[in-house]
Amino acid sequence: MEFELLKTDPASKARAGKITTDHGVIETPIFMPVGTVASVKGVHQTELKQEINPDIILGNTYHLYLRPKTEILKKAGGLHKFMNWDRNILTDSGGYQVYSLSGRRKIKEEGVKFKSHIDGSYHVFTPENVMEIQREIGADIIMAFDECTPYPCDYNYAKRSMHMTHRWLDRCIKHFTETPPLYGYDQTLFPIVQGSTYKDLRRQSAEYIASRNAEGNAIGGLSVGEPAEEMYAMTEVVTEILPEEKPRYLMGVGTPINILENIALGIDMFDCVMPTRNARNGMLFTAHGTINIKNKKWADDFSPIDDMGITFVDTQYSKAYVRHLFTVNEMLGKQIATIHNLGFYLWLVREARKHILAGDFRAWKDMMVKQMDKRL
Amino acid sequence: MEFELLKTDPASKARAGKITTDHGVIETPIFMPVGTVASVKGVHQTELKQEINPDIILGNTYHLYLRPKTEILKKAGGLHKFMNWDRNILTDSGGYQVYSLSGRRKIKEEGVKFKSHIDGSYHVFTPENVMEIQREIGADIIMAFDECTPYPCDYNYAKRSMHMTHRWLDRCIKHFTETPPLYGYDQTLFPIVQGSTYKDLRRQSAEYIASRNAEGNAIGGLSVGEPAEEMYAMTEVVTEILPEEKPRYLMGVGTPINILENIALGIDMFDCVMPTRNARNGMLFTAHGTINIKNKKWADDFSPIDDMGITFVDTQYSKAYVRHLFTVNEMLGKQIATIHNLGFYLWLVREARKHILAGDFRAWKDMMVKQMDKRL
Ligand SMILES: [Zn+2]
Ligand SMILES: [Zn+2]
Repeated sequence: MEFELLKTDPASKARAGKITTDHGVIETPIFMPVGTVASVKGVHQTELKQEINPDIILGNTYHLYLRPKTEILKKAGGLHKFMNWDRNILTDSGGYQVYSLSGRRKIKEEGVKFKSHIDGSYHVFTPENVMEIQREIGADIIMAFDECTPYPCDYNYAKRSMHMTHRWLDRCIKHFTETPPLYGYDQTLFPIVQGSTYKDLRRQSAEYIASRNAEGNAIGGLSVGEPAEEMYAMTEVVTEILPEEKPRYLMGVGTPINILENIALGIDMFDCVMPTRNARNGMLFTAHGTINIKNKKWADDFSPIDDMGITFVDTQYSKAYVRHLFTVNEMLGKQIATIHNLGFYLWLVREARKHILAGDFRAWKDMMVKQMDKRL
Repeated sequence: MEFELLKTDPASKARAGKITTDHGVIETPIFMPVGTVASVKGVHQTELKQEINPDIILGNTYHLYLRPKTEILKKAGGLHKFMNWDRNILTDSGGYQVYSLSGRRKIKEEGVKFKSHIDGSYHVFTPENVMEIQREIGADIIMAFDECTPYPCDYNYAKRSMHMTHRWLDRCIKHFTETPPLYGYDQTLFPIVQGSTYKDLRRQSAEYIASRNAEGNAIGGLSVGEPAEEMYAMTEVVTEILPEEKPRYLMGVGTPINILENIALGIDMFDCVMPTRNARNGMLFTAHGTINIKNKKWADDFSPIDDMGITFVDTQYSKAYVRHLFTVNEMLGKQIATIHNLGFYLWLVREARKHILAGDFRAWKDMMVKQMDKRL
């Protein structure tokens, strides 16, 4: 993997860059649509590529490990081939899902024993086997196994957990280095900064992570319920320490406004279920605010869902029509809203990139944050 | 509406024809995908047009009347504009749904009082108001209000019901003739032959319907649970009587085999929820038989779902991948199966048409019926 830093905004820490992997170029800042279990819900791969056009998508190790299981992905020749996606993929480490989805889990120094949320069967994730599973899935960028602490989190728990995450990181790096990629292209391991909402812990963790000299670095444990201001404060502390010449990935963030604010703080990569999950609940993000398309006020509004026309759905379907589809629970409503929201998120980060390259990101960001902070 | 009969098969009663309406040409035999409530479930209008490519789709008066309600459709300028579909639409009369969906209904000479399956509210359908509703929906072809008898049906009940359907037809024709189309294009009314599974009633009904001299004629009350042989026997009795120079529509039929057999008996138009409903349950129709994609045997079969490649889904997704999507209940699985099945149904009727025009339909049909009668 290579990262080229092309430009930094003069009035913020926003950066425009370019990651190159064996599956192509990723222009940063980037938003990665979430394809949980080998599908971006409701979106055909052709639509994803042609209409939404992200350079990279995300898959969830926990979900893929349980179904279809890595055995099937190995037989298929990896996740790219299995789901017919030839651009970049990043997989998380499964850590987050083990804590949020599994009813029962026991965290020890060795690893985590957890119960599948599907069939109740018991499984163990360790730094070592999570590296192996991610080798078998075959994503271009894979994540270290960490503990994602909840919010709020007791200081002492957060501190102990952070140090364990650091020790797990060293085991991940060792095992990752000792095992080869399986499908003829390179994989890159990103370590994860933890430390809950404590500045001193975040600093310590960022220094530890930076010292491992990975090709890219991630920030975890945010967007777990804390106020946005705390999230931004943590991002700021961490991006001051993480090396400039490496891409920075803020995991699980967030709203369009969160994304712009974190770009301004020096983040290059994002992922979040929000555009897809909220779409399925009828919430549309636009440049002028959010729309709850289920609202009765749209029942006879025959204007296009978004006259910006980023994707084909924006101008081909009216608000009244999409509102009707949600009212009668037709799956096409969810499909339309999902394509719209992902199209908008990708437009937003591409637009951010243009403004960073043009040198006027800060003013544009301030205007957009104000403009998007509305309910239509 | 105009109908041109282009060719009749020398070895069967199969016909190739051409219907022309203000929304374009419908090449027959045709299969009409069902867009119940202004959406062919899981399929974008662009995909429907470009990949599946039917000249006409069907909407359900009962569903559209309840939601979004005809008031909204009127404001939108009709169903075509509301759902952004500029080709032909046919609407049924609501009769079938009143009998199958509404928990309570009371049939009288005047009309039917029924309870909405959505909110329990009471409504009345009469021959007159069903004409008005269908004027407001604005389909190109609209259906007379009839009683669709269940199977099996007592002879005397079937006979009384048939005569009431005939009287209702005359009221439909009168009201239809007295009311203008609302959106600047013509609408055509098709009457419906009833008579359950009794040949003498079917003959009587076909004679009555033929005597009304409509621009096209339909056969209702079949595919309601009777054996296929009984269905074919009724179709045969009726198509011997209905005029040759008018298109014939067999409502609610059926499997790919049912469709070919009924084409051989002189049917020109079909609709059925089977390709879409069964798709959502994981059943794929192919030229070589049906596939239950949920079956474990496909778990590691990485071949395309259908190497015929009629639509893009056929070659871009593997059986193992689609099987996985059904296993994890991802909506993309339903979307893929739906596009595949509709693509196949439309291919089937287009192929039938080619063979009718080439004069070798009968042999091709016999081969296909044999070939498709398998579980893969
Ligand atoms: Zn440490
Ligand atoms: Zn009669």
